[in-house]
Amino acid sequence: MLKYQKIAYEIKKYIEDNDLQQGHKLPVLEKLMKQFSASKSTLSNALDLLENKGDIYQVRGSGIFVRRHKRKEYINLLSNQGFKKDLENLKITSKVLELEVRKPTNEVAQSLNIGLQDNVYYVKRIRYINGETLCLEESYYNKSIITYLNKEIVNDSIFNYINEGLGLKVGFSDLYIHVDTLTEKEAEYLGLSEGSPKFYVETIFHLTNGNPFDFSKITYNYKHAHFFVQENLGN
Amino acid sequence: MLKYQKIAYEIKKYIEDNDLQQGHKLPVLEKLMKQFSASKSTLSNALDLLENKGDIYQVRGSGIFVRRHKRKEYINLLSNQGFKKDLENLKITSKVLELEVRKPTNEVAQSLNIGLQDNVYYVKRIRYINGETLCLEESYYNKSIITYLNKEIVNDSIFNYINEGLGLKVGFSDLYIHVDTLTEKEAEYLGLSEGSPKFYVETIFHLTNGNPFDFSKITYNYKHAHFFVQENLGN
Repeated sequence: MLKYQKIAYEIKKYIEDNDLQQGHKLPVLEKLMKQFSASKSTLSNALDLLENKGDIYQVRGSGIFVRRHKRKEYINLLSNQGFKKDLENLKITSKVLELEVRKPTNEVAQSLNIGLQDNVYYVKRIRYINGETLCLEESYYNKSIITYLNKEIVNDSIFNYINEGLGLKVGFSDLYIHVDTLTEKEAEYLGLSEGSPKFYVETIFHLTNGNPFDFSKITYNYKHAHFFVQENLGN
Repeated sequence: MLKYQKIAYEIKKYIEDNDLQQGHKLPVLEKLMKQFSASKSTLSNALDLLENKGDIYQVRGSGIFVRRHKRKEYINLLSNQGFKKDLENLKITSKVLELEVRKPTNEVAQSLNIGLQDNVYYVKRIRYINGETLCLEESYYNKSIITYLNKEIVNDSIFNYINEGLGLKVGFSDLYIHVDTLTEKEAEYLGLSEGSPKFYVETIFHLTNGNPFDFSKITYNYKHAHFFVQENLGN
């Protein structure tokens, strides 16, 4: 972690630990520079990062303020592989239904930018929130990047393993969102009736070098699919 | 527009005009600095802005690359008051059903951080995409900030008017997303059957100074509610 990232993390932690509400004014830049023994540019980078993540807003000539939405029990739609972070008091568990190496379909090959003769890890899981079905997840990992997976890993956080176990850096993702109705099979997995609404998200995750490594399809239980997004419209 | 914003705009335009695809390598920093007669820090700001908006990705020691998803006819879930930008070849029109000044409900007052005795503009519109119903939109504007609206304005882009007409700067927004089924009334507006799935988004828009000015509730026709989000996971 670079110094500005560490400072951003400390400020975010301070906001959460003290349960500061939206609009709460943070100390002025000079004071923060002193407190973190950091240069103006390092601190500006930290604040810009926090602003981009939706944790603060900066008003020129006025100060730095906490940004924090009021609704609890919403899942962050973005970076939602990091469930735990946003659902600290909600328990997420997984049940692995399938884990195998296979050949990609056309759609998967195209999404992962690989050939039909290449190998992918296919992972099918049901995820639970406080014991109730949250979603059915099917993911396809490019095996030449994600070289190894086993049941224990996919039972837990795959992204933690990718970061820490494989030492890979996740860079960016493209999400495609649809709403539709559940098929009989999907309904069965989620414990809902066929024809119920579904929130369906396909995501292509890329490493920082631009290579796509994970194509995932998630079908959410609409009863628990409450998401928030904190957006910056400036610039 | 500041110089770095203008440069970012020019680069984005260059990508679109030349229909550059994801992974296309852009000129190196030094070349761009020369081309735009800009300092390294100005150009870095422009590139960071483009990276945050999901238009490029930068790989340390390797270069600057185009980021561009492949699926057409998807609406950008974020900054979607700017429909036109993302749907250049799709025609968005509106029909205004109601426009009036009223007192806020508890929910609206709380979302806009105003009192129950304050006034809001209530706007109800149906929006169409290529002539088909896209969504039913109900918006509540804090009248002490959005001091004037009329039918002609709300028939067109309200956000253009807020920016250019009123000279206000939109800063950030909080989105809350649900999936549910359409009520009889909603179904009627959208031309769908009662009980069809709905994609429902509540958004609180804030000015750059942190004041909320617009609370909007949008019910999308699931048949046209195809959204994309380009996310950065780095940092």
